Amino acid sequence: MSGFVRGPFVPSTGAQRPLSIDDVEIHGGPFGRWQRVNREHSIPLGIEQMERSGAVPNLRLAAGEGSGAFRGFRFQDSDLYKQLEAVAWEHCRLPDDAYPAFVAESAALLARAQRPDGYLNSHYQVTKPDLIYQELDYSHEMYCAGHLFQAAVAATRAGCGEELLAVARRFADHLVRRFLVEGDDGIDGHPEVETALVELYRLTRERSYLELAGKLIDNRGKGLIAERGMGPLYAQDHLPVREADTAVGHAVRQLYLEAGIVDVYLETGDESLLECSVRRWEDLVAYKTAITGGHGSRHDGEAFGERYELPPDRAYNESCAAIASIHWNWRLLLATGHGRYADLIERTLYNAFAASTSADGTRFFYVNPLQRRADLFEDAYLGRRREWFACACCPPNIMRLVSSLGHYVATTDDEGLSVHQYVPGTIRAGAITLDVETDYPWDGRVRVTVRDTPGGEWTLKLRVPAWSASGDLTPDANGYASIRRAWEPGDTYTFDLDLTPRLVLPHRKIDALRGCAAIERGPLVYCFEQIDQDGDLDDLALTPDTWLRTVEHDLPGAGRTVLIEADAVRLPSASAVPVFGGLPYATASADLQDHTPVTATAVPYYQWDNRDGGLMRVWTPLM
Amino acid sequence: MSGFVRGPFVPSTGAQRPLSIDDVEIHGGPFGRWQRVNREHSIPLGIEQMERSGAVPNLRLAAGEGSGAFRGFRFQDSDLYKQLEAVAWEHCRLPDDAYPAFVAESAALLARAQRPDGYLNSHYQVTKPDLIYQELDYSHEMYCAGHLFQAAVAATRAGCGEELLAVARRFADHLVRRFLVEGDDGIDGHPEVETALVELYRLTRERSYLELAGKLIDNRGKGLIAERGMGPLYAQDHLPVREADTAVGHAVRQLYLEAGIVDVYLETGDESLLECSVRRWEDLVAYKTAITGGHGSRHDGEAFGERYELPPDRAYNESCAAIASIHWNWRLLLATGHGRYADLIERTLYNAFAASTSADGTRFFYVNPLQRRADLFEDAYLGRRREWFACACCPPNIMRLVSSLGHYVATTDDEGLSVHQYVPGTIRAGAITLDVETDYPWDGRVRVTVRDTPGGEWTLKLRVPAWSASGDLTPDANGYASIRRAWEPGDTYTFDLDLTPRLVLPHRKIDALRGCAAIERGPLVYCFEQIDQDGDLDDLALTPDTWLRTVEHDLPGAGRTVLIEADAVRLPSASAVPVFGGLPYATASADLQDHTPVTATAVPYYQWDNRDGGLMRVWTPLM
Repeated sequence: MSGFVRGPFVPSTGAQRPLSIDDVEIHGGPFGRWQRVNREHSIPLGIEQMERSGAVPNLRLAAGEGSGAFRGFRFQDSDLYKQLEAVAWEHCRLPDDAYPAFVAESAALLARAQRPDGYLNSHYQVTKPDLIYQELDYSHEMYCAGHLFQAAVAATRAGCGEELLAVARRFADHLVRRFLVEGDDGIDGHPEVETALVELYRLTRERSYLELAGKLIDNRGKGLIAERGMGPLYAQDHLPVREADTAVGHAVRQLYLEAGIVDVYLETGDESLLECSVRRWEDLVAYKTAITGGHGSRHDGEAFGERYELPPDRAYNESCAAIASIHWNWRLLLATGHGRYADLIERTLYNAFAASTSADGTRFFYVNPLQRRADLFEDAYLGRRREWFACACCPPNIMRLVSSLGHYVATTDDEGLSVHQYVPGTIRAGAITLDVETDYPWDGRVRVTVRDTPGGEWTLKLRVPAWSASGDLTPDANGYASIRRAWEPGDTYTFDLDLTPRLVLPHRKIDALRGCAAIERGPLVYCFEQIDQDGDLDDLALTPDTWLRTVEHDLPGAGRTVLIEADAVRLPSASAVPVFGGLPYATASADLQDHTPVTATAVPYYQWDNRDGGLMRVWTPLM
Repeated sequence: MSGFVRGPFVPSTGAQRPLSIDDVEIHGGPFGRWQRVNREHSIPLGIEQMERSGAVPNLRLAAGEGSGAFRGFRFQDSDLYKQLEAVAWEHCRLPDDAYPAFVAESAALLARAQRPDGYLNSHYQVTKPDLIYQELDYSHEMYCAGHLFQAAVAATRAGCGEELLAVARRFADHLVRRFLVEGDDGIDGHPEVETALVELYRLTRERSYLELAGKLIDNRGKGLIAERGMGPLYAQDHLPVREADTAVGHAVRQLYLEAGIVDVYLETGDESLLECSVRRWEDLVAYKTAITGGHGSRHDGEAFGERYELPPDRAYNESCAAIASIHWNWRLLLATGHGRYADLIERTLYNAFAASTSADGTRFFYVNPLQRRADLFEDAYLGRRREWFACACCPPNIMRLVSSLGHYVATTDDEGLSVHQYVPGTIRAGAITLDVETDYPWDGRVRVTVRDTPGGEWTLKLRVPAWSASGDLTPDANGYASIRRAWEPGDTYTFDLDLTPRLVLPHRKIDALRGCAAIERGPLVYCFEQIDQDGDLDDLALTPDTWLRTVEHDLPGAGRTVLIEADAVRLPSASAVPVFGGLPYATASADLQDHTPVTATAVPYYQWDNRDGGLMRVWTPLM
């Protein structure tokens, strides 16, 4: 049955089974808004950039058709592959003839660019054919292949992938010959192909793809990544995956690798793979995850930091890392049925991920810090959201996830249906059809109506978010409330999640957040933007008993929101702070008693930077 | 007269005049220890590395003598130049025939490598002669030239520089022809040549060198640095120097540029240059300087951060930035006579700079953070001190400063003699000879004995450190206590500086240090190392009224020290801290009431990492 599911992840085993993207219609709320602007603005912009950024022209060069020089990064092909995947899922969600046409045109170009032996990478074919597979530690050749495979799987499941799948299989077969049959032990410096190979196996049942994925995972930690460049730790080659206890190095690399590890477990039953991945998940969540679900504490190497190294201002929290984290958590959720993974997906979706895109879908963040300190930014990848990037890994990655959001809402198992994310819409799962009515996350009321139902009893499982301390639902050990009955068409079940605003404190070992608090409501992390405050944002302080109240609002340019007003204080101006020989260190502390009561206004973090480019902070000092 | 001073900086004007390195004999204390290990261990190690690291072999290739490929960075030549400068000043300080021999041998090689037209850069000559001066935004060609000029000035003033000076002048004349006479407006992406050209002018009185330095400074901020690579802000090309208000980009670049700016002011009298540099100094000290005097808050780009962005763990504080800061502050001190610059030199010397080298002079830090969080370091440039680096800008830079430390102790003016740094030893300035007896910085007592004195009155000026709140000396507006009298041989003046340990608090706007305190005593910043504590360092907290007491001690491997014992508390273990769905964020804070009294032991920061590789922190949470 799983072969007929139209979605990015269709495992053969696991505690839960996924639904097709088009089996979940999303009718509104933030998810609905994101899908609308993604279709109307982001995807057309991305398609246009495929030409402008060099991705398509590079492939023409490889096909011997164009003129000029290769442009962009060695992984420039992957932009097109992610764009194709976004287009395919969008066609699956809501068909439009333009989408298969773009896929067909691209697949034809790829077929012409592909070497007769199946190899395909415009950078190496055009600029250094003699170095093919010779620089695997940083070449991204398998990384690009992986994105091609995912695009081909998506297009095939969306019904428009025949030629693209042929291209993908020829490349996959080429990899299999070289790295499985002929026994080359090379691994790519950037994991990604592992999860893609497993999905290609799921689609095609060609077992060598799964075997190659397993071999690539088993080969990590054997010193195959050279010390040159960023080194083994950066690329998770410092330890075998079954031995590593903590996420290290480049965040996106680690997180895609984890997705591949769980994928191989799901197809082979190798428990040691699930076990090591869950061990690192627990470590990652306890020590290296931002309150937004973001990952990667360092600009240097786009990397994880040490345990408890979680700076708000210099957090990297790359948009791609949020996407990779959602992929990994979704695999863990379906493998184990445990709601903690759905909780983290929700936190990541509504915060680290959603913040990556402007409200109108035309601009993107690459880096998602929790504080904007000043107006001056040295790094082109910081500051305001931008339409595109020289390294444009994020925008098409964002688009493919938004198009496929329906995949992440609900699952089935032998007992019935589980709802993981609360969105207004319709969920179809075999003989069951549910309508979900809710204004979540602005309001906590959710009403589920059974429209179609098979005969006999089945269980409706509803995720109880860990933050919903006093809602209507009582969770089981996995974090779900179960309602088992012989449902009749028209039956409804209504419940409330607890959206009382929360003042959240950091663990005392997070040095960078000491003495601060953040505000959350439901799944949303809030932030203060300068534009909403009286006085300097950096003079604002909360108190441990700060009163928080909600205000319905329309944010110009960003649509519907709920603001939170906090009874805060404004500290005496910074000029009152003692200094020492001009330095900002002194034996006496600032006299903060002379503060002024003030109302501070917070907006959902994901909606920040939709007005001006002013200061922002998620974590605010506590008096 | 200034032409006869044997030291790195001999300006024609200014409020104060420098002394020769060999006019200040340092007999002990930390400065004396650093000079001893520098001579016995560091300099021999550096000379050996000139061969091993490729610096000398590269020049042989350029001379058509060697075989093999160019090794290392495009600025590899500069390692040899800094090493030559260190050797020259060491010879000036305490002659040894081996030093002039090394200089002569190197100069001969450089002369053979130099092109007939005067150009000299092994990287470009060997690997890409067609791109000479075509990649100035990152080529380091003028940067390397500047270090050659400084080495030649040092060797000449030390009496062993004839051939090296000839090489330097030929290259300088080549630069003058291209960039002054022929009117090429290029600037080097890495400032350094400006200050070096001015010093070469001071030595040779060849005015075109000064004019070129002025032109290079005036040309910054005109968009000559391309957007490619690290971009204009990184290389201080974002604004003309007279318009920029704050230090930005690569810290070492900014600080060397400032030294050149003050140098040009001192020779031309262009007050607008002094004014803009002082404006940035005040901004830098108030907002972007670590308590150790370190500069550069970001690994990414080895760069300054935003105002108040001063993380302890991820601070970069490159050793070279400390050296460049001392160079700049020394120029400002001599230009203005203001003690605040000597204060910052002292803070930087005893902390950010001194920490860069192991107690035995055989290992070096490139990066000098204020916190070591764990044992696992991804970056080869972090962790323990290392014998050498692929990018070895720091070690020979450290050596040249240690050899020339005598230059930074005292100055003269028409009124008499000023003592800026308190070291046991002898100071000769014309007809005046002083003996200084002190156990500073371990003890605050200083006794100055006049051994030789001219007839009539003159003024002895003694710097009163800004931290010496209740010492014997009363400072004037410039921070100096003046004793004017008709001194007789044998006269003594004894005073005490206040070395009471201080608990120091950060400005409330430094987010990364909120809720923490540091310990200082005299010029020394202290830190806690794990090895000295009972229990986990990260469970330690101080209280606002923590009692601090000093303990005389010998630190194994690091020699004499004074420890500080603090009445601290041990917080309940981290496992008692609430978490939220596994994340380190919760609506309830840790219960810290169940803490245990404990004695915490601090060591001077500069002596850290001389025992094990354990955790360290300068800033410790306050209960």
